[in-house]
Parts: sequence; structure tokens; C-alpha cells
Amino acid sequence: MERVDIAIIGTGPAGISAAINAKIRKKSFYLFGPNTLSEKIRRSELIMNYPGMPAVTGEELNASLRRHLEEMGIGITEKRITGIFKMRGYYYLLADQEEFEARCVIFAAGVEATKPVPGERDLLGHGVSYCATCDGHLYKGKTIAVVCDNPGMEEEVLYLAELADKVYFEAKYKDPGVTAPNVERLSSPIAAVLGEGRTGGIRLKDGTEIPLSGVFFLKQSVSPAVLLKGLETENGQVKVDRRMATNKEGCFACGDCTGAPYQIAKAVGEGNIAAHSAVAYLAEKS
Amino acid sequence: MERVDIAIIGTGPAGISAAINAKIRKKSFYLFGPNTLSEKIRRSELIMNYPGMPAVTGEELNASLRRHLEEMGIGITEKRITGIFKMRGYYYLLADQEEFEARCVIFAAGVEATKPVPGERDLLGHGVSYCATCDGHLYKGKTIAVVCDNPGMEEEVLYLAELADKVYFEAKYKDPGVTAPNVERLSSPIAAVLGEGRTGGIRLKDGTEIPLSGVFFLKQSVSPAVLLKGLETENGQVKVDRRMATNKEGCFACGDCTGAPYQIAKAVGEGNIAAHSAVAYLAEKS
Repeated sequence: MERVDIAIIGTGPAGISAAINAKIRKKSFYLFGPNTLSEKIRRSELIMNYPGMPAVTGEELNASLRRHLEEMGIGITEKRITGIFKMRGYYYLLADQEEFEARCVIFAAGVEATKPVPGERDLLGHGVSYCATCDGHLYKGKTIAVVCDNPGMEEEVLYLAELADKVYFEAKYKDPGVTAPNVERLSSPIAAVLGEGRTGGIRLKDGTEIPLSGVFFLKQSVSPAVLLKGLETENGQVKVDRRMATNKEGCFACGDCTGAPYQIAKAVGEGNIAAHSAVAYLAEKS
Repeated sequence: MERVDIAIIGTGPAGISAAINAKIRKKSFYLFGPNTLSEKIRRSELIMNYPGMPAVTGEELNASLRRHLEEMGIGITEKRITGIFKMRGYYYLLADQEEFEARCVIFAAGVEATKPVPGERDLLGHGVSYCATCDGHLYKGKTIAVVCDNPGMEEEVLYLAELADKVYFEAKYKDPGVTAPNVERLSSPIAAVLGEGRTGGIRLKDGTEIPLSGVFFLKQSVSPAVLLKGLETENGQVKVDRRMATNKEGCFACGDCTGAPYQIAKAVGEGNIAAHSAVAYLAEKS
């Protein structure tokens, strides 16, 4: 397996800024994330405070970022990273079943759109999953719930509906387009995942309890601390120093995942710093 | 005197980013610096890593930044700040002889183009000056040296030549345009300012010593720690935390003055954060 210098996770402004600088500094890297770039930017009506681009629409800025990547010949690996493991001197990354290796990692995948509900983190890997492709096969013929935080992942809901007997479905956005005979939309949002050591059901906000054997939370951004065990966070944000270094050697973070202000200018600035720090780290280790 | 919310010092990308956000957040502020914006950007042939503006020339980017200020109705106060004093609950600023007041300060004036020479900092205020308008009158009929780090300040050299009897002149750039009968260009750069407690002369790099009574260093950017006594620095850089707060309450810093990487993306990111931190500070204090 080819081991690249840097795995950059996220195709928002922080990840793009990191990738541009990695390219200039002639490093080999993956840029993981959706080809559509940042959903959050794309949906912004008007951005007033990205210096040099006065009163730009989100669509325009996203198009400019895409053009920037294209002009520099930077390709996107359209995979969602589902797990990261620190090995001796490198990181091993999983995107569903696919494997990747990189000497260092830059987290730039934004923040989880929704806070984890009680039970979600405790039962992760024990009936709670963030990855349809990885774990769907475990629920053939069973009853599950699926929470989806963006329309781009509805395909995965349908994939799960093909496997499971019954799917309770919650969309975190308006007008979801999922229709299948065995998919039932929940009338109230999921308030908790129930079970001791193993998922046994869910409780809705209205108090209803539903027994089932698995819950999938399909999120565009999963907290880096869930992907990489032992990554230090503070109030849910990745803890970084002024160099954007985390507590894990060779692992950097930038953009919304490091905390407020949640701004494009801040994200590109931190992406720039993270890339420079990664380059310095690689030089030191080589 | 009108006391504004924020004094932003510097019209490079960090100061502009801070000003844009201060404006959006409806704060009153001064934006101090040259109308020509960043000399460093303007002289950049091609900037590859400002996300969203692929392969932009320095001239183009500077023009875009200026347009951004204009479209938002942000004016520049074309003054060079020469001293800052922390008062009870506000800052008092001097620009030559003019006075200003602000509840908080954002430093964004870049880094000194030239390192201080031995003796320069020790004798500052004792024969060494950074401000022609402030201190020129002290040297009527005397012999002085003037070091100028950018062509935009040659007018001040000529002003000093009108007052002084004799001026030894050093330009830190090519082809200076200063001509006056009593101005003599130094053949070798100044290596040290000499004197115990009071300036008595200079030593050139070639070893020559010249007796004189004053030395002016005319710099576009003076170290913030010289402008504001007690501001903490580390290796010549302003020490800031992740919020861009310095050790002085209500004083923030961003851009090149906080250290490497010396990049436009980093500067706009830090300017954004500094403005948000200043807004939070003002809310807390009001």
C-alpha cells in the first residue's frame, strides 16, 4: 500500500487550504471528503467577511475553491473516513472497507451537525454505528433506526433499508427524499439510545420507546475523537496549540473542529498553519 | 475626544480582516495604516495559496482587499501609531502628536522589516527615535543619522534634513530618492548605536565610528512591544493564546507579528479571531 505524507480529512475551506499548501510544498497527500466541498458554505446566501471577495455567495465561493483545486491539479478522494489508528510512525485509515496509510494526519472535517444523544457514544460499536457500508450486513432481517444529517447520505439509508427488515428513519433536515415500503419516518426525534452493553432500543423525545437491535447515525462529520482514540478534546473541540498540533504526534487539526469562531477566514488560516506544521514534522522525522 | 470600541493597527490582511468583522458586528473603530495597504502583498508577483483566489498577483489581491473595504464603507485613518498607553479601562494612542482613544486594541501591523541593531532599543528615547514628527525638533542644528526602511517615508527624511545640520542617511531599499545638500549617504550600514545612557554616535559595519547626537529609525512596522510597554513577546513575536489575546487585558494581536507562517491566509484567519475576541471582550466589559 502506498504510504503518503499527509492524509487531509475534509474538503471545506480548512482542508482545501491545507491541501493547497501541501501541494506547493511538494508533499504527497490524500484529500478526503465530498466532491461537492462544503455544504455549509454552499448553503450560505451571502458571505461578507472573506477578505478579498466582498459580498460573495456561498455558491460562488465554493466554485472558486473548486477552481483553485483544479488549477493546482489537486484531486479529491471521495471517501468518508470511518476510523483512524496510530501505528508506529504512521497512521492507518479506514474508509468503510478501504485502507489508507499516511505519515501524518490533518483533521479538517468540521463539526458534527448534531450533538450525540445519550447512549450514542457508549454503545458505539455495540449496536450503534456511523457507517452503513461497514456494519449494514450485521442487521440483515432486523429492526434498526437510521438518523441522517444531510441529504447527500440518503443513498446509504436506502442501502440499509434493503438489508434490514424495518427501518425507523429520522432526517435532521427538511423534506427528506427517502421512500421505501419498510421505512417509517419517526414522528419525534430520537432522544436516547437504550441498552446496557448492547443496543436494545431507542427512546423518542415524546417518551415513546421502540425496541430494536441497531441504530445508524449517518453524519457528514464525525467527531475526530471518535475516529481516533485518545485524541484530546475540550468541550467537544479538538485541543490544539498555536501550531495546530493535537496531543497525538503527527496529528494536526484545523477549522471548525478546533472551535469558534466558525468562519471561513479562520478555517483557511488554520489550514495553512496545519500544513506548514505537518511539513515541519515530516522534515524532522525523515 | 471620541473613544471608539477598537483601534486596529495595520492595513495588511490581518487588520483588514479584523476591520471587516468589527464593521459587521457594528463596533466603532479606527483602522490605522497606509492607504496603500500591504507593501509586502503589493510586491508579491504571484500568490498561489490564498484559497478561492487561485494564482492571483499581489496587485490584484491588494485591489480586491481595497474594494472589500470600500464596499463595506470602511475608511482608513492614515496615521502611524507611535505610542500606546494602557489606561484604566481603555487605551490611549499617539500618532505623532495626534491623540486617539479606544476601549481595546488589535495589533496587526506586521513585523519589523529590519532587526534592531545593538544599542537601538536601549537608547530609544535617549537619542534614538522612531518618529520624525515627534522628536525632529530636538535635533535642530545637530548631526543625526536616519535609517529608512521604505520609500513611502522619504518625506520624513527630508523633514529631518530641514531641521538638522547634517544627516547621515541609510536606505534599506534600492535607489532611494532623497537628495538634499546636507544629506550624506552612508557607504556601509549602521551596525550599532553607541552611547551610555545617551546616544553619542554610530558604528558602521565597516568599523567606522561617527559621532552624532541622534538616530532616527523610520520603519513601517515597529514592534508592538516597543509601542506598548510590558507587552509580552517570545523570540520577538507577540505572545498570544488561541483567542489572539496578549498578556495585556483588551489587547489582541494577529498576523505576522504573532509569528510564522507569514502567510495571507493565516493573517486573515487570525484577524477574524481577534475581532471576535475583541467583540466578546467589549460585551463582557460593558
